[in-house]
Amino acid sequence: MSDKKQKKQQKLKARLPRGFVDRSPADIRATDEMVAKIRAVYERYGFDPVETPIFEYTDCLGKFLPDQDRPNEGVFSVQDDDEQWMSLRYDLTAPLARHVAENINTIQLPYRTYRAGWVFRNEKPGPGRFRQFMQFDADTVGAPGIQADAEMCMMMADTMEALGIARGDYVIRVSHRDLLEGQLDATYVIDGLQRLQALRNADKRDRLGISGVWQLNAEGRRDESGAFVEGAKIVNTANTAITATISASFSDISIDDDTISIRIDPNVREVIVEGIGGSHSTDNNEIIIDDSTSSVRIRATGDTTKIKKAQSELQQLQGLFESAGYGPDRIRIDPSVVRGLEYYTGPVYEAELLFDVTNEKGETVQFGSVGGGGRYDGLVKRFTGQDVPATGFSIGVSRLMTALKNLGKLGREEMVAPVLVTVMDGDTEALGRYQKMVQDLRAAGIRAEMYQGNWKKFGNQLKYADRRGCPIAIIQGSDERAAGKLQVKDMIEGRRQAAAIASNEEYREARPGQFEIAETDLVAEVAKLLAHQAEDRAKDGN
Amino acid sequence: MSDKKQKKQQKLKARLPRGFVDRSPADIRATDEMVAKIRAVYERYGFDPVETPIFEYTDCLGKFLPDQDRPNEGVFSVQDDDEQWMSLRYDLTAPLARHVAENINTIQLPYRTYRAGWVFRNEKPGPGRFRQFMQFDADTVGAPGIQADAEMCMMMADTMEALGIARGDYVIRVSHRDLLEGQLDATYVIDGLQRLQALRNADKRDRLGISGVWQLNAEGRRDESGAFVEGAKIVNTANTAITATISASFSDISIDDDTISIRIDPNVREVIVEGIGGSHSTDNNEIIIDDSTSSVRIRATGDTTKIKKAQSELQQLQGLFESAGYGPDRIRIDPSVVRGLEYYTGPVYEAELLFDVTNEKGETVQFGSVGGGGRYDGLVKRFTGQDVPATGFSIGVSRLMTALKNLGKLGREEMVAPVLVTVMDGDTEALGRYQKMVQDLRAAGIRAEMYQGNWKKFGNQLKYADRRGCPIAIIQGSDERAAGKLQVKDMIEGRRQAAAIASNEEYREARPGQFEIAETDLVAEVAKLLAHQAEDRAKDGN
Repeated sequence: MSDKKQKKQQKLKARLPRGFVDRSPADIRATDEMVAKIRAVYERYGFDPVETPIFEYTDCLGKFLPDQDRPNEGVFSVQDDDEQWMSLRYDLTAPLARHVAENINTIQLPYRTYRAGWVFRNEKPGPGRFRQFMQFDADTVGAPGIQADAEMCMMMADTMEALGIARGDYVIRVSHRDLLEGQLDATYVIDGLQRLQALRNADKRDRLGISGVWQLNAEGRRDESGAFVEGAKIVNTANTAITATISASFSDISIDDDTISIRIDPNVREVIVEGIGGSHSTDNNEIIIDDSTSSVRIRATGDTTKIKKAQSELQQLQGLFESAGYGPDRIRIDPSVVRGLEYYTGPVYEAELLFDVTNEKGETVQFGSVGGGGRYDGLVKRFTGQDVPATGFSIGVSRLMTALKNLGKLGREEMVAPVLVTVMDGDTEALGRYQKMVQDLRAAGIRAEMYQGNWKKFGNQLKYADRRGCPIAIIQGSDERAAGKLQVKDMIEGRRQAAAIASNEEYREARPGQFEIAETDLVAEVAKLLAHQAEDRAKDGN
Repeated sequence: MSDKKQKKQQKLKARLPRGFVDRSPADIRATDEMVAKIRAVYERYGFDPVETPIFEYTDCLGKFLPDQDRPNEGVFSVQDDDEQWMSLRYDLTAPLARHVAENINTIQLPYRTYRAGWVFRNEKPGPGRFRQFMQFDADTVGAPGIQADAEMCMMMADTMEALGIARGDYVIRVSHRDLLEGQLDATYVIDGLQRLQALRNADKRDRLGISGVWQLNAEGRRDESGAFVEGAKIVNTANTAITATISASFSDISIDDDTISIRIDPNVREVIVEGIGGSHSTDNNEIIIDDSTSSVRIRATGDTTKIKKAQSELQQLQGLFESAGYGPDRIRIDPSVVRGLEYYTGPVYEAELLFDVTNEKGETVQFGSVGGGGRYDGLVKRFTGQDVPATGFSIGVSRLMTALKNLGKLGREEMVAPVLVTVMDGDTEALGRYQKMVQDLRAAGIRAEMYQGNWKKFGNQLKYADRRGCPIAIIQGSDERAAGKLQVKDMIEGRRQAAAIASNEEYREARPGQFEIAETDLVAEVAKLLAHQAEDRAKDGN
């Protein structure tokens, strides 16, 4: 008994590390179908495929992930035998910057490229949260003007429609990193870490609400678990400007000399009033809640260059969208877009799906973001020391696929399982004969296979054909062989008949479940029956 | 000056870790084209795609790589935060075994699947030797009979032809792991490590020649660098059997009671005679060189079960190939096939390309192996404890692609670069107008892009169009705009004219290099010109 126990312990357990999954045929085929459709749009836009390997030197990748409280700051790293550290890429943008910098003398700028690939995060895995996932990126490097950002947004919109997502079921939302950075400048927040924290807090609005963002920007916030998260402690003017901005429409934000005015709704008003001490204005009138215009006014004590530039660029973007025929039903300026990554320096944009789905808690929610990006003028400069402007976005492939499945836009053309040639005799001569049938079917472009399990139990062969979803089984025993005949078994019809019998319904035989043909007619008869079955499927489907 | 130096040191160097490379558009498109053709064959054979992630637990992968004198035995590994070791897969077979074992209760056996994916080796990188490369695998799990191995070989042959490789330019060579294992059994080699070394030595024949194999199986060998590599020290009977086997034709090997007879050519005879001490026979007549029949006879003192089984299975395989119509010009039994991986247990097979190429030393050589595999009945059993027979093969994607490029079989349909809409004016209204032109072209399925660099130097725009290979440039200045006109510049014709002028050849203008059209005719005129250019290309190509 202790021997047995030891033996059991020695047996290796087949398992995957947490956060990694195998992919099924249906998943792979759906991804391929989706990626091909996206690629066609990008190619039409003049983008070419360029790919980088999965490893980069750790210093080349840089550290731009928002979640830094994980081992190696969320990245998988190994030390090479020359002692240099290498990491698995956590996105496709940082490697592209390295690629451009390394080849800057041979690359023809502006450089439009795209790539789909696996990225890796050393994160705590959870439901729907994977440590390996696929991104599909497009980037234009060496394009300084906002027309390049505009084009990215249009390409995202066209991609959504190419995937069959109806107008009205998606929107591309656009903002500008300097809309918030500019508020911090204007309200004289200088400390770099504070600024970064304020941006990341603003990005958490969807999850924590406006009052959560306020608290995290002020002293701090106690989360559901009871733990206290230290705040960024930015000044009230900055906090007011940030929270009001990410809650407002673009047209509700104005800046005039040294005053920022933002229209606010009652909820936001409440958060701000409470935040600044329960009054309509602060002591020195740096913040004034004006209920007659439903707005808040903030005195800009710092530099307003950035915020004015952001406003102007967003207005120009709006103009470009309109003149190219992309109305606000497709692309919309929306100051609530923040984007979590640190490296953005200009316009930021996000593709959002607007239809409802049921989340894991059973609530009805909008599907939400399936991808986004923005301008990152500083990433290549890390290497070259020179300005190399760039803009691009990333689509989360699995997430978008989930959305398309919800909409019934993927995998409608299911791959038909192979025709099964059964085995009644196992000597080399007979096996060669069965193999020949299979090869003849394949040569005619028909998916086919010979039964490769233990052929001696014939029942298992038909059970296999049934479970595998084979449309047809071919049977030839010694009698048929002698007569130059074959049995063709229609597995689809067989399943229908069985289902009818089981449900006690009246059943009218549409086709014979099994029939005999001449050996020489194998390919023609199988092709004919497959065509019949396809017609039936088309009828059932519509 | 020291300031400057310091600044220079601080700038990050853009570089890739050794053994990793970026992929160009041409490479990616060629790979996609090739992979799609291979996939079509596998699908027709009834195989479905199934993929595993890039990470596995280290113990699940096992250690089957031949080159074990590298850090972590040639594998990249990281420790997870629960202290378990994970590794990047070094092939696609070990992960498949884990996948099957993990899902053994739900998978319908026999299970035919395929997958293309990146694998990683922590090897010393060298020319053409990468640490990340792509394999394309197909496997049948749960198929005990050699008809499954036969099918794999046929599928490899069909794949070669689907890729455009002519019959005669490739051959699938087939042997059996037990042909060598059986020789070791028969000549009474028991030690496991010795046996493994003997197999790996046999696999080095292409590189070291027969005498190199003999030396490595005997006392050892001094390599080119002068270093002495310790030998496996197997008995002379075993060494004679191994070296003769891997040099012989299948029909030249026979076993009769306790005597193995193998026909040998003069070179092999010389190596053996020298190896056994310069005589025609050993002292106790265990090895006899018989010059009357040009053969060597070895006395089998051990178990001959395996070698007899291998012979019988190879004969059956030959029968199956013949009856399915695959003659020796496509699939051939060839005892010189060994395969380096440890886990094979039955038939092994290799796809070899026979046409000549010039190697890096300038020598003319046969292209050689582009993939191979074999039966590995023990891999799933590591997890389940039960026999789960399996057979499959792997294609080296980059290597096969190099071969196809050599044959001119890939990338013949080059992607045409986009039409460039140039920018003469940078205000939002004008940019919107140019963008609209581009969107109209794209909507008609034409690759097009607006110039995204600094538009103020118009010469740079045409230079860009030229270097990028744009077929057409569209130009609209304010005069044309006022008149509702556009200039269409035929960049292909322009290049031809420039080349003619440079070479002083007489030049007859085939098309105007530039012409004016009505703004409203943009899409129609561009489509027409692209069609003309395509016709020209077709003429030039044939």
